[in-house]
Amino acid sequence: MTVELISVGTEILLGNIVNTNAAYLAEQCAGLGLSCYYQTVVGDNEERLAQTIETALSRADIVILSGGLGPTKDDLTKETVAKVLGRTMQMDEHSKEKIKEYFTKRKIELTDNNWKQAMAPEGAIVVDNANGTAPGIIIEDNGKRVILLPGPPNELIPMFETSIYPYLSEAEPGIIYSKTVKLCGIGESKAETMAADLIAEQSNPTIAPYAKTGEVHLRITAKAADEKEAKKLIKPVVKELKNRFGMNVYTTDENTTLEQAVVDLLLANNLTVTTAESCTGGLLSAKLINVPGVSEVFKSGHVTYSNKAKHKLLGVKKPSLDKYGAVSESVAKEMAKGAAASSKADVAVAITGIAGPEGGSDEKPVGLVYIACSVCGKIKVKEYNFSGNRNKIRESSVIAALTLMRQCILEHYSEVTFR
Amino acid sequence: MTVELISVGTEILLGNIVNTNAAYLAEQCAGLGLSCYYQTVVGDNEERLAQTIETALSRADIVILSGGLGPTKDDLTKETVAKVLGRTMQMDEHSKEKIKEYFTKRKIELTDNNWKQAMAPEGAIVVDNANGTAPGIIIEDNGKRVILLPGPPNELIPMFETSIYPYLSEAEPGIIYSKTVKLCGIGESKAETMAADLIAEQSNPTIAPYAKTGEVHLRITAKAADEKEAKKLIKPVVKELKNRFGMNVYTTDENTTLEQAVVDLLLANNLTVTTAESCTGGLLSAKLINVPGVSEVFKSGHVTYSNKAKHKLLGVKKPSLDKYGAVSESVAKEMAKGAAASSKADVAVAITGIAGPEGGSDEKPVGLVYIACSVCGKIKVKEYNFSGNRNKIRESSVIAALTLMRQCILEHYSEVTFR
Repeated sequence: MTVELISVGTEILLGNIVNTNAAYLAEQCAGLGLSCYYQTVVGDNEERLAQTIETALSRADIVILSGGLGPTKDDLTKETVAKVLGRTMQMDEHSKEKIKEYFTKRKIELTDNNWKQAMAPEGAIVVDNANGTAPGIIIEDNGKRVILLPGPPNELIPMFETSIYPYLSEAEPGIIYSKTVKLCGIGESKAETMAADLIAEQSNPTIAPYAKTGEVHLRITAKAADEKEAKKLIKPVVKELKNRFGMNVYTTDENTTLEQAVVDLLLANNLTVTTAESCTGGLLSAKLINVPGVSEVFKSGHVTYSNKAKHKLLGVKKPSLDKYGAVSESVAKEMAKGAAASSKADVAVAITGIAGPEGGSDEKPVGLVYIACSVCGKIKVKEYNFSGNRNKIRESSVIAALTLMRQCILEHYSEVTFR
Repeated sequence: MTVELISVGTEILLGNIVNTNAAYLAEQCAGLGLSCYYQTVVGDNEERLAQTIETALSRADIVILSGGLGPTKDDLTKETVAKVLGRTMQMDEHSKEKIKEYFTKRKIELTDNNWKQAMAPEGAIVVDNANGTAPGIIIEDNGKRVILLPGPPNELIPMFETSIYPYLSEAEPGIIYSKTVKLCGIGESKAETMAADLIAEQSNPTIAPYAKTGEVHLRITAKAADEKEAKKLIKPVVKELKNRFGMNVYTTDENTTLEQAVVDLLLANNLTVTTAESCTGGLLSAKLINVPGVSEVFKSGHVTYSNKAKHKLLGVKKPSLDKYGAVSESVAKEMAKGAAASSKADVAVAITGIAGPEGGSDEKPVGLVYIACSVCGKIKVKEYNFSGNRNKIRESSVIAALTLMRQCILEHYSEVTFR
């Protein structure tokens, strides 16, 4: 079956936002085995939108529209789809209740235009939006399927995962099944070289490497009649990749993130952890705290941006700060040591670096970061030279810290735990 | 004049890459005063590409294609454009020289397929590529303009800046100029209702509301002969919006974020700040630390996830934790008070809440968050009921904390500082 994506929004036409929704939906559809030949972006204009929908319906089995489901007059995706399909708009009582609930819960005043979001084309399947007020819409019409999703990615993605993916899986017979072997502590080209022969040889399943910040994901995709057959095709490849990449494989579970893998490792070894962050300013602790179940292992973290805070809260010695500077191996070590001591955690990780754009020098350029990890008193410290802007350097630092934590724990406790 | 963008590439259709080229080109074209009503993504397929080009030419004055100019057989943008316009392909001697030079300089061996990149449709203007081997192409045909650009952003962007922008500037007289009035502490529908008459009345400039997490941006866009005239059209509208939204306007500067506005306010009033975070786990401090110049105001922050850490690091009283629970007005207040005391900061903000998915109850559901802000000893605390998943609740909490900080500082120091 073929699918076509229509993104509705003047912000995309004006280049104010990057169309990440289309990339997400395209990837998901490809995973479902749907062929996508066109993606279109069109503004909140009834005539042009109607024409775009008609064209898409003339050439694809499934049309997915995103955006234009808001409460304002500008938002006319739903109404235009209804018009093109010759359906009237009706109040959906369930959505009305949901919207009322949403506003009552947040103690926000409801304005009249909010009810517009509870309207749906007649005969539509209305899909709950767990993260906003615009419900999704599915319309089956003459063998075609039209799916409407809200524009904000934090509403669109969960809705797609929860409701649309399962719906489309049933629509497309035969399946495409993927498994991802996730690697940390290894670069993309090295990973690709190490798997080059496998990538070249395989046709079903295929192996495709994807570079993420500080990580490489090897995605193995099989086409088969059913999941069981697909899994059988994928299994030996996963085994071979695990063989080749050993310790660098942190999970083969689709939903497990690196921070989850680290928290699992802490839980499995009954360890508590603390953080001491300078340039990352709390990004690492925030990432750890996003893992369900982390409260067993993470009690407190330190954000020590100034030298004074490093000294006062972590006991970093003033002579070390003076002699080596805040961005140095010694200070990173003392930060980790101090954090471990002050919070009595088994594992402490410290990050100090120059995220830029200011603050770099010839000797200590922007991107220079030291990360120290202490596991039960044994400290390891590493120097990194990251490139990119401030955000990228901070993000790279957080991933490197997680990778180093994982490595140190594994070295201390030889048992590897996989999800 | 109207412009239409066509991105050619199977990687975009498969969702392997995000179409940042389209966002860049759209923004540039908007700045040039060109109206863009459609963007299309199509794969490296001659028939579909030809059809897409024909459709675009039938409705736009200028068609910009990106991608598909590479040396391989898959790359057929140039050839397809030539076919659609009924032109033959010819060797461009200048490009041939350039390509030879490129390879010689890099000591790479030239393969036969590289000469394909020196071919151009007859009568085309060939544009040098300073960063790769694929030249750009401009074809003027029957009052229409077709522009072909290489796909890699590091080739496309410099080529557009150097050659295409000046070319299009001459083609389109007049400009489009935008200004954004950014609001916090107000919902999208309320904001729209308050500006509904202005939005309806205005045609030049236009006003469009955009909802962000915890923020609303009102974008005012004018078409005019030059920037000066556009600014003159926009000025009274900005003034009126500032009048209506008063304190809710945190900036009218395109590049200023809410956290930047808060840091500016701290700097202007010579205040230092600290954070005490539970469910957000460092996200707020990380956001503040991303603002250049923050080191003047932010020295240290606390991530206190466990009750013990709240007691030990922030001095939250055990009876308060027992009686009211960690997610309560009292504990939020004590956290802010304790953070201010321990770090001797003028402003302290504390966040405690239930981000889910676990941990909610009937009495205290997921999404319940208390934020307290202390300014020079005066504490304000607010209750919030956010919806969405864990990430969304955390993100909403951070924006609400920044909004509350701004409000408390403004109430304490009556002077409003704008960027």
